[in-house]
Amino acid sequence: MSEILNEILSANKKYASGFKSKSELKSPPKKHFAILTCMDARLDPAKFAGLAEGDAHVIRNAGGRVSDDAIRSLLISHKLLGTDEWFVIQHTSCGMCCVTNEEIDKEFGIENESKKIDWLTFEDNKKCLKEDLEKLKNHSLVPDSIKIHGLIYDVKTGFLEKL
Amino acid sequence: MSEILNEILSANKKYASGFKSKSELKSPPKKHFAILTCMDARLDPAKFAGLAEGDAHVIRNAGGRVSDDAIRSLLISHKLLGTDEWFVIQHTSCGMCCVTNEEIDKEFGIENESKKIDWLTFEDNKKCLKEDLEKLKNHSLVPDSIKIHGLIYDVKTGFLEKL
Repeated sequence: MSEILNEILSANKKYASGFKSKSELKSPPKKHFAILTCMDARLDPAKFAGLAEGDAHVIRNAGGRVSDDAIRSLLISHKLLGTDEWFVIQHTSCGMCCVTNEEIDKEFGIENESKKIDWLTFEDNKKCLKEDLEKLKNHSLVPDSIKIHGLIYDVKTGFLEKL
Repeated sequence: MSEILNEILSANKKYASGFKSKSELKSPPKKHFAILTCMDARLDPAKFAGLAEGDAHVIRNAGGRVSDDAIRSLLISHKLLGTDEWFVIQHTSCGMCCVTNEEIDKEFGIENESKKIDWLTFEDNKKCLKEDLEKLKNHSLVPDSIKIHGLIYDVKTGFLEKL
């Protein structure tokens, strides 16, 4: 048995023992919004944005990037589950910043051109976020009615800054 | 100004005001593991798995599916940031269950065969999770040394069940 798995199951037992008040939560987010942010361990979106269970969708990947899969999730969030406001939240000191696709390919020993991966690295926080917001707003399946915001989370202060 | 944005910024101000103890957290997850789970609003992985800021990567998408982007994130998590144990946590009453790609395409008015999207819907919780774990374990860039676990979160009880 894994030690980490034991820790998780033990924490989960405590959590579930006080769960009764949450058992009737519904699938569609109560506050009708979704957050897309980074997987970074320092980020707890429920805490830094004040979410309770049931409030909002939270999508996370390396970089908080507007990847095809993040778009899939946001489109589902809107069309099937009624969100109409989306927050893309990237952050300072991100591991995807200031490294290149080539460097990561090299780490994995990927040399064959056809096997190279777009790791969605980036060079500049604000530029990256702006481009991602444009990509999302211009996507053919994203309705103009969706309110889309961009924010940067500062891992040194815990503050969100609107782009 | 959006009402939801105001709410988020106000909650964030409170969070950041007590942030000092977290300002020295490092990028690599302290507990060397990553969780992949669903974006569902009812799920708070930090709470249900007992995570503090800095402990673990959290990746989330519609369904908690092992998508290409989730694999990208997990590979980065391991190779660049040192995680060596991954938990794929899907859940009961998921919005991606028991709906078909065709039905979602129809919602979006997608008729052209070449524009159809794989929304990563599924029919059965355990079958889906098993297939996703196999996909992850068999991926050419995932080392055999990574410990990979599958769990199902019950949204009615808050309990995690190991597959």
